[in-house]
Amino acid sequence: MNDLALKAAENLSKIRESNPLVHNITNYVVMNYTANALLSLGASPVMAHAENEVEEMASFAGALVLNIGTLSDPWIRAMVSAGARARSLGTPVILDPVGSGATALRTRTATRLIWEAGVTLIRGNASEILSLQQAGSRTRGVDAVDTVEEAAAMASALATELGATIAITGPEDIVTDGARTAKIRGGHPLMARVTGTGCTATAITGAFAAVDPDPFTAACSALAFFGMAGQKAAENTSAPGSFMIALLDALYTLTPEELHTGCAMDVIGSGPKEQRP
Amino acid sequence: MNDLALKAAENLSKIRESNPLVHNITNYVVMNYTANALLSLGASPVMAHAENEVEEMASFAGALVLNIGTLSDPWIRAMVSAGARARSLGTPVILDPVGSGATALRTRTATRLIWEAGVTLIRGNASEILSLQQAGSRTRGVDAVDTVEEAAAMASALATELGATIAITGPEDIVTDGARTAKIRGGHPLMARVTGTGCTATAITGAFAAVDPDPFTAACSALAFFGMAGQKAAENTSAPGSFMIALLDALYTLTPEELHTGCAMDVIGSGPKEQRP
Amino acid sequence: MNDLALKAAENLSKIRESNPLVHNITNYVVMNYTANALLSLGASPVMAHAENEVEEMASFAGALVLNIGTLSDPWIRAMVSAGARARSLGTPVILDPVGSGATALRTRTATRLIWEAGVTLIRGNASEILSLQQAGSRTRGVDAVDTVEEAAAMASALATELGATIAITGPEDIVTDGARTAKIRGGHPLMARVTGTGCTATAITGAFAAVDPDPFTAACSALAFFGMAGQKAAENTSAPGSFMIALLDALYTLTPEELHTGCAMDVIGSGPKEQRP
Repeated sequence: MNDLALKAAENLSKIRESNPLVHNITNYVVMNYTANALLSLGASPVMAHAENEVEEMASFAGALVLNIGTLSDPWIRAMVSAGARARSLGTPVILDPVGSGATALRTRTATRLIWEAGVTLIRGNASEILSLQQAGSRTRGVDAVDTVEEAAAMASALATELGATIAITGPEDIVTDGARTAKIRGGHPLMARVTGTGCTATAITGAFAAVDPDPFTAACSALAFFGMAGQKAAENTSAPGSFMIALLDALYTLTPEELHTGCAMDVIGSGPKEQRP
Repeated sequence: MNDLALKAAENLSKIRESNPLVHNITNYVVMNYTANALLSLGASPVMAHAENEVEEMASFAGALVLNIGTLSDPWIRAMVSAGARARSLGTPVILDPVGSGATALRTRTATRLIWEAGVTLIRGNASEILSLQQAGSRTRGVDAVDTVEEAAAMASALATELGATIAITGPEDIVTDGARTAKIRGGHPLMARVTGTGCTATAITGAFAAVDPDPFTAACSALAFFGMAGQKAAENTSAPGSFMIALLDALYTLTPEELHTGCAMDVIGSGPKEQRP
Repeated sequence: MNDLALKAAENLSKIRESNPLVHNITNYVVMNYTANALLSLGASPVMAHAENEVEEMASFAGALVLNIGTLSDPWIRAMVSAGARARSLGTPVILDPVGSGATALRTRTATRLIWEAGVTLIRGNASEILSLQQAGSRTRGVDAVDTVEEAAAMASALATELGATIAITGPEDIVTDGARTAKIRGGHPLMARVTGTGCTATAITGAFAAVDPDPFTAACSALAFFGMAGQKAAENTSAPGSFMIALLDALYTLTPEELHTGCAMDVIGSGPKEQRP
């Protein structure tokens, strides 16, 4: 716990010192806001999706973030190419499976990216993450996940199955790599009233993964940081528009020291490992 | 009048209680702002344009909003497919004919969507709406529309011709379904200094149409609400950037009671019906 | 100098009086912000990229702005078509070569647009502008440009080579048409923490070029104005989110008189002309 908080503070300092380049292939709705969030935090965002440049761009980046919020076929091909290049270079690939489970295209694309684009880390809400379970998986379905502990157990099994770290965000966030599981408190209800805060959490996770080779601690750090920024933003605002702007400000002003002393993370028991037949 | 104001307040309450899903196929410029406006208001926006998922997405939605602000061929095809699916399910389809009349592509696409995508309700400015008149229509041209009353008469005839409710926004808004016509006062000049306020009016109309099966009262409610939000936003701001943010805040804070007592709507005489040869 | 400041003030007044239409074919990330910046300033933005309408749209515009920040092939074709039409009508074409030099696609596209789309004026940062030098150029490379004066000399030679006015923005801005070179001070470090401020500088340059037939004085005016707006925005904000909004406000509130008396521009010696073999 104290170790995780210290790591979070160290990671934030590293981002502010090294300004890692985060390559985003993301949806139209959130491009502007996530780019601004990364700049406020101290990272260097680049948005590029053309099939004839994504491999080159991905090769410069400290992390690659793939977000399926507004899909079309050329974008899917670009995500696969960029992901494969990034993975071949050891660059972390972070997936946001926006709306996976809602339409067949999204569920299929998220699954395809996990296997073909070499995804290291997945950040979504509970229903998106649950949709990634294979049909034959023994893990229980969404209606069986009533508590944070049950969600953690499901996510832990899925992380092992997919070979990727999984972060589920919600009123409480869960991060697991199958072996380790942490629970993170923070954030504010107004975050749900601003479009793209989930996508922004994913992009910020990319920035932390660019400076921290351990996806588990990178994701814990990122979500603890983003949650605290949300709380700070809500101190002086009470409606979504001004909150959205105050959140960008908080990403800029929140210090490693504040993060170290203020974040609330617990390592909790890891869930049962997937039993394969 | 009092009936309309009461209906507006009831509709706003319904949105805040049921958070209707509004599916938007809209332009790149305003995607973020309209999604935030819908969230602030209390609706649930989804932006999706891929041809291979729009029908599925439209089938979940309480309303479908089509906006031609940044067109290309695949998007047009997606709008037609999504609109046809929505209409077949009885889901209201709201069209924003951005720039219709300015280029041939836009005028042609707006007209095509009206006939092929089953549009229920059209929201535009006066010149966009006028451009939708068929070449052979006996309705008078834009240069003959000098007063709000003349615009109302033209719009009423066009609503009958197209079989859709029409909302014209401007210094005063007009809503007509051919049989009923209302005039709505509100808004603020700074709204014209923020990109996408027209598109946002259309998206908000979608949210109201999702909870009100009568397109006429849905559009009146939406425009009265948006106009009052604009006035409220201008109370403490005097420049476009801070106004834009205050407007999102006002969409969140404006109550049904404020809307009921504060909105300014009049039912006015409906214009002459279209005389077909 | 005083002449340039007076010209800047006159140009700003002209924009506020005539609201010139600026046609942007620009990247997804900045579309909303640059449209809002143009509206705040007093111009009329239109964003349109469909191949089957860009020529028509460009023919109405006072200036055409091409920005390669998020490229794909149909957009490149649209930029070439729109540029050719604009140039044939004597309409200024302003290029923002975002990321030129970073990937082969961007460098190639920027160069192609300069030659095929009839670019009048190019606005970029130092490395983007340097990437536009032809392989055989005698101008020195980026590692030889240590001072503003050296950058000015390089840019002046390149302006002559390309037959276009060049504006390099940075801590100090340089504008040159080969014959005349000016240095402009202003701006604020927070501008680098908001995505798209460079793109916005380019779009604003488009608005000034729409009212001033001399690309050199148009660019000087635009950058002096934008730099002062950045300084004004920083007076009451100290973090990127609120600065971003205050910057839009400042584009609206900054007066021609303030610009006349407050801007800091110097005509400096023009660099050595390109010696062709």
